[in-house]
Amino acid sequence: MSKRRIAILGSTGSIGKSALSVIDAHADRLAVVGLAAGENADLLAEQIARYRPKTVSMASGEALDRLRHNGSHDAALAGSGRDGLVAVATAADVDIVLCASAGTEGLEAVLAAIEHKKTVAIANKEVLVMAGGIVMEAARRHGVAILPVDSEHNAIHQCLHGRGSTEVKRLILTASGGPFRGRSASDLQSVTADEALRHPTWRMGRKITIDSATLMNKGLEVIEAHWLFGVRADQIDVVVHPQSVVHSMVELTDGSVIAQMGVTDMRLPIQYAFSYPERWTAPMPSLDLVRAGRLDFDLPDTKAFPCLGLAYRALEAERSLPVVLNAANEIAVARFLDGRLSFPAIAQVIEQTMGAHRPAEVTTLAGVRAVDTWAREHALEIAREVELKV
Amino acid sequence: MSKRRIAILGSTGSIGKSALSVIDAHADRLAVVGLAAGENADLLAEQIARYRPKTVSMASGEALDRLRHNGSHDAALAGSGRDGLVAVATAADVDIVLCASAGTEGLEAVLAAIEHKKTVAIANKEVLVMAGGIVMEAARRHGVAILPVDSEHNAIHQCLHGRGSTEVKRLILTASGGPFRGRSASDLQSVTADEALRHPTWRMGRKITIDSATLMNKGLEVIEAHWLFGVRADQIDVVVHPQSVVHSMVELTDGSVIAQMGVTDMRLPIQYAFSYPERWTAPMPSLDLVRAGRLDFDLPDTKAFPCLGLAYRALEAERSLPVVLNAANEIAVARFLDGRLSFPAIAQVIEQTMGAHRPAEVTTLAGVRAVDTWAREHALEIAREVELKV
Repeated sequence: MSKRRIAILGSTGSIGKSALSVIDAHADRLAVVGLAAGENADLLAEQIARYRPKTVSMASGEALDRLRHNGSHDAALAGSGRDGLVAVATAADVDIVLCASAGTEGLEAVLAAIEHKKTVAIANKEVLVMAGGIVMEAARRHGVAILPVDSEHNAIHQCLHGRGSTEVKRLILTASGGPFRGRSASDLQSVTADEALRHPTWRMGRKITIDSATLMNKGLEVIEAHWLFGVRADQIDVVVHPQSVVHSMVELTDGSVIAQMGVTDMRLPIQYAFSYPERWTAPMPSLDLVRAGRLDFDLPDTKAFPCLGLAYRALEAERSLPVVLNAANEIAVARFLDGRLSFPAIAQVIEQTMGAHRPAEVTTLAGVRAVDTWAREHALEIAREVELKV
Repeated sequence: MSKRRIAILGSTGSIGKSALSVIDAHADRLAVVGLAAGENADLLAEQIARYRPKTVSMASGEALDRLRHNGSHDAALAGSGRDGLVAVATAADVDIVLCASAGTEGLEAVLAAIEHKKTVAIANKEVLVMAGGIVMEAARRHGVAILPVDSEHNAIHQCLHGRGSTEVKRLILTASGGPFRGRSASDLQSVTADEALRHPTWRMGRKITIDSATLMNKGLEVIEAHWLFGVRADQIDVVVHPQSVVHSMVELTDGSVIAQMGVTDMRLPIQYAFSYPERWTAPMPSLDLVRAGRLDFDLPDTKAFPCLGLAYRALEAERSLPVVLNAANEIAVARFLDGRLSFPAIAQVIEQTMGAHRPAEVTTLAGVRAVDTWAREHALEIAREVELKV
């Protein structure tokens, strides 16, 4: 059996490291052929020494210089930035591209991978939120599978398991509720970045952990689900499930609900994407429902956590508004992490940026990038105004 | 679109009535062509007047006489007893046979239906417990689908949805725990049939409600699951889940667990079997997980409820022991319902009958019937002895 050859965009991040651990566990069936990292040249150098990929890239030229100083490598340094990602994603020997790079940088690489007929395992929310229509249309045109690695969408993919959209009544995304579940809007005025970074069930990167605390993470997932599974906004519900045992659910036309459950370990959905349509054993303990004992379900508090509502509003308007939502969120979260914005001000900045935007159709990558740039600049201005008022 | 033509064995029972209500809701796609009932001639007469089946039968000649006195019918009175069931199940225009007759009477009819290439929807546990090997082998030979209507096996069928047995690590059957969940063995000494008949979540017939209180119902389901899904006894676990929202689960090889949930309404699995491989909308409210609020999971108490362990023991020994288990259980439950046996004595009678039996291979229906007859006689003797001691 020939090995499946993997390129990882974002290999030094949380998902990237989990992906390498999946490849370690299945070294007889998986091989690393490409690695792209952000700024962590030391870790990438270690990964290169261990996995011997053929092509590598980093986010910037400076990072690439640091990598060069780190010793000699057989790997071709494919470049930096978006071009570097594209080069790693489209190398001839790649079968599966795992897109786990942060933010929107991976967009061009995902589209290029699709054009080169690579299977795309997508762990990055922003790519589909910004350009879901463009990406899914390209995947259809080239007959390429887009396999979701996000635990929720991966769960839905497993629940559907070939069932057509005519069998689907609605998708039910579960949300842990984040570290501030149960707090009122006024309670949230004074919470700090450190508190927000303490996620109850999942260990993830900083940006996504804040998104999880604001419920924007769930909002972005609603938009992603729309594109991945071809369902309308009103067919996607969110339910708070603090134990994160049920990863998500699908309600079928007869009212039957299919749920996927598991331990909270990202290696499982990553392995699912690498092994699909097969399923391999995994080197981790089984879910013990009796030990979990109890699963709770509740409605999300959209008043204390308005980001979820903003995401639905952006999706219902479609067109360019999800791009604005995502860009404004990235700006606002960065400034919250820097201690400049309060927690509730994140939603405020996003809402005001969305309000200032005139939605338009965006059918090209250039169009997406233009809206993204406008929204980032505008969100920054709004954030500074909000900060001055405090 | 031509209608799917249904024969219902056990049309006046709980499942039979639910099946007719499913057919009412989908009168454009389903039609009744055969009805077989037990002793309730009045109700069968009403059903005949309403659904105009082509063939009908009843359990006894006396019941059939009562039906004749009840008025003239266009339907052919196909006969009584096992022959009557066979005639209704094998009529030329039948597409799907729903086997929902009580006890073991439907066995010959199920095998005959398979030989006549009918799809079999099976709601009767005893048929597979007694003759699972024979039935499944016949289904394979004739290329006939056996669709489980039992809520647990139906759930597993939905969770598998075409996944092969190589993808399955284990099946997890959920049990409500019955009305006596949490009681100790000594507490159960004095419980009455009336108390045992108050099931917390499902409305069912008397025999199955008692089986649910002793957990024998779950034991019979473990044996059924073995035959339906081709898994070993050690691959089937039982977990107590008092809310009966999760109908059952499948753990796949990578540790991922797929669950099927729904409201507790037998019309859903019946409709699933009638519509399969399609899925139709159903005229009932959706599952509201937020309203359910909380789902609990616990281990079954095999000390207070030894019937579950007896069923595993019978399945592990295979051969003729499940037939003995089932026959002794029927005798013991009948005598408990008559107020002659105590609740704990049900397990005692079964265990002693199993202990007196020398397991042998049974590969023919005649062999199954012979063991069944022996076990019933023996269980009756043992029950009488136990009763005398009280």
